[in-house]
Amino acid sequence: MSPADRVPLPAALAGALGERFGGRFTTNPQILLQHGRSESHHAARLPDGVVLAHSTEEVVAVVRLCAEHQVPIVPFGAGTSLEGNTTPLRGGISLDLSEMNRIVAVHAEDFDCTVEAGVRRQQLNEHLRDQGLFFPIDPGADATIGGMASTRASGTNAVRYGTMKDAVLSLRVVTPDGRDIRTARRARKSAAGYDLTRLFVGAEGTLGVITEVTLRLHPIPEAISAAVCGFATLRGAVDTVVQTIQYGVPIARVEILDDVQMRAVNRWSKLDYPELTTLFFEFHGSERYVQEQVETVAAIAAENGGGDFQWATTPEQRSRLWKARHEAYYAAVALRPGAVGWPTDVCVPISRLAECISATKADLETASIPATIVGHVGDGNFHVIFVLDPDKPEERVEAERLNAALVARALAMDGTCTGEHGIGVGKMDCLEQELGEALELMRTLKRAFDPADLMNPGKIVRL
Amino acid sequence: MSPADRVPLPAALAGALGERFGGRFTTNPQILLQHGRSESHHAARLPDGVVLAHSTEEVVAVVRLCAEHQVPIVPFGAGTSLEGNTTPLRGGISLDLSEMNRIVAVHAEDFDCTVEAGVRRQQLNEHLRDQGLFFPIDPGADATIGGMASTRASGTNAVRYGTMKDAVLSLRVVTPDGRDIRTARRARKSAAGYDLTRLFVGAEGTLGVITEVTLRLHPIPEAISAAVCGFATLRGAVDTVVQTIQYGVPIARVEILDDVQMRAVNRWSKLDYPELTTLFFEFHGSERYVQEQVETVAAIAAENGGGDFQWATTPEQRSRLWKARHEAYYAAVALRPGAVGWPTDVCVPISRLAECISATKADLETASIPATIVGHVGDGNFHVIFVLDPDKPEERVEAERLNAALVARALAMDGTCTGEHGIGVGKMDCLEQELGEALELMRTLKRAFDPADLMNPGKIVRL
Repeated sequence: MSPADRVPLPAALAGALGERFGGRFTTNPQILLQHGRSESHHAARLPDGVVLAHSTEEVVAVVRLCAEHQVPIVPFGAGTSLEGNTTPLRGGISLDLSEMNRIVAVHAEDFDCTVEAGVRRQQLNEHLRDQGLFFPIDPGADATIGGMASTRASGTNAVRYGTMKDAVLSLRVVTPDGRDIRTARRARKSAAGYDLTRLFVGAEGTLGVITEVTLRLHPIPEAISAAVCGFATLRGAVDTVVQTIQYGVPIARVEILDDVQMRAVNRWSKLDYPELTTLFFEFHGSERYVQEQVETVAAIAAENGGGDFQWATTPEQRSRLWKARHEAYYAAVALRPGAVGWPTDVCVPISRLAECISATKADLETASIPATIVGHVGDGNFHVIFVLDPDKPEERVEAERLNAALVARALAMDGTCTGEHGIGVGKMDCLEQELGEALELMRTLKRAFDPADLMNPGKIVRL
Repeated sequence: MSPADRVPLPAALAGALGERFGGRFTTNPQILLQHGRSESHHAARLPDGVVLAHSTEEVVAVVRLCAEHQVPIVPFGAGTSLEGNTTPLRGGISLDLSEMNRIVAVHAEDFDCTVEAGVRRQQLNEHLRDQGLFFPIDPGADATIGGMASTRASGTNAVRYGTMKDAVLSLRVVTPDGRDIRTARRARKSAAGYDLTRLFVGAEGTLGVITEVTLRLHPIPEAISAAVCGFATLRGAVDTVVQTIQYGVPIARVEILDDVQMRAVNRWSKLDYPELTTLFFEFHGSERYVQEQVETVAAIAAENGGGDFQWATTPEQRSRLWKARHEAYYAAVALRPGAVGWPTDVCVPISRLAECISATKADLETASIPATIVGHVGDGNFHVIFVLDPDKPEERVEAERLNAALVARALAMDGTCTGEHGIGVGKMDCLEQELGEALELMRTLKRAFDPADLMNPGKIVRL
């Protein structure tokens, strides 16, 4: 994307936005920067203005005004995406939905709720707790629900509870031509025509702006138990997971961290776990059933060279354990003072996971930059976090090489170039390698829904 | 659809198909009739020719030839759909995939398999049994996997295992312009761009022809237990289900049958269950966990006016029980000699289910035609089966009135006009009521993917 593609904000548009939104339309450089930079290594690129929307009607107004002036719009939530998904590549308006954070309705008896797109994951779970319900999808970051829907987020609980693809029942969406539509009703399932809901989940804001999300919820389990277990070998850790799933144990979370990541976690979170390939487990169910699951998995782990389980039994211990896991990215980046992180993710069939991680680890051991491995092993999904010195461009080149090798390896195993981070600006070439001719269907979709190419342009597919 | 819309098969096309497919291209009237009629009340409409394809390459050839001659194509599997989904409204070619029935690969360690579209549900489960795996989606009919994907089928197990939306990992599809594409890789999850897989699941063959399906599988549970329980009131039966789910019991199946349907089932399957509102249950898990689930649910049922559980403990008893449930449609139709069935289905949020079924039952009790109620109560999905005398057109008018009232009732409760049968030709007006302006997005999709309107034309949306 060359700077020449960037169109300055037309004065008439700026005037109209100022009139309608007052101080909630801004070109303050500090706020532009907040909306133009990324949580990871992707280059910042400023929008020309930011609008802080407070309602779907306001989103409609912004979309219509921008369409009239042919100015791009990039929906923005918490800004925690990792592939430059919200970077306004061609400037225009960053449409901030973070103050659309009302919980519209909770239907406890139906195990669902409707929230505005700017509601954050933790806010929602705090709201639900008293009703004995929770929303399981947990990508680590305290992302907005709209952002999570847009990137098809998943995370640590996906092995049991699925991803945003499974969690979203219905969406309210503003289309590129400014229509306010609802993709589905609140029924738990439907065979009523094309799956418009799944069309917008994972579309990264390129087909429209999600303003409300209706989500499936789950009852808080009667019992929750978590543990950590180190393994003599990577293969032993992965085999433990495969056998656990084969046995039909509905494990709620099972995460893998390699020795380098465990060193980073111990240092960052002041813990003293053995610095081995390690699994973090969580079990949900009735008291008796959790006990049974734990016995089964402990026996499987022992057969595969696992050490003793270190239990986190109180809620405080459990939250310390998962906080350490969730901060793995920051822990990895902190391995080098002043470093910047480049997190990447792939997902492969679980039978190929041990081989994929082993080959990746061998690659990383001969690399000129440090990197850690951490992943949602039950899904076959893992991350590599490259830890770069931002002042050494050659390190970025090295990360590019390693990332390309990782994606090629995952694709050769019939895997995908991203299990949960999305395509954004970082993985467009990878998507082309992954899909071949099918990519043309994605182009057809984008052209049909957004013929003027104004919705988060330059992401997912090149037109 | 007036007969004038029907285009006779061009001689050049018939010649080309005859040359390529020999006896597998036919215009035999008996075979045309098999492909033009429906399992339910929808009027038959003959195709102008049938092609029996044996490979994706052959499907590509048919699609390209038909595109060249502007002749419609309707993909056909087992012909068990219920809303006229495979009726060739504008004639053309019925593309029969039932002999594309190879199981391409089973990846036991990954819990997935790839099958050709014509593989049938029971054939697949027989193939998988020795490997300790099963494919859970069970719409009752022994449908083809391609057809099940195309109608987003679900059925009795969906409350635990989800629908075809959840079961399909990836599809091989021939697009309307004759490209052979794969929608995704074999990873269990992916955030790689638009969800092409979910775009074709439920599209009823209107966007392309599904030729191969990669499915998620599940380990056969260690223990399975099934039971039947009659209730004093409808409300008691529904409350039992809601409380079971609230309690977090992962029930594998829970089906409701009303008193009329129970009478039909007893008569058809030579059983002697009490003719009350009845729940059919199935529990999956380890021996201990199934025992625990059963104790929990039996206690909940007793509190809600349920009678004793009648257990089906041996595999033979269990299969007799579910055979009776699966034949509910035929049992209902057999209530009147020479009758034809009109099965309809809606799905509502579970909190509204008791109210929706009660109001529907009140409606049926004053109707001039017999009808039964049977449903997947854990999902809020239920069917009404109208039992019509085909020689009395006024009965069809009565069924139309009752069906319209049922759909309006479900929509008023934020439900959907079909939980699992699809739109076909029968529910196009209902879909419009359900979606309003969002229907325009479906038109956009259809026009973008199939601009010549040759793929199963006249279904889902009117262009």
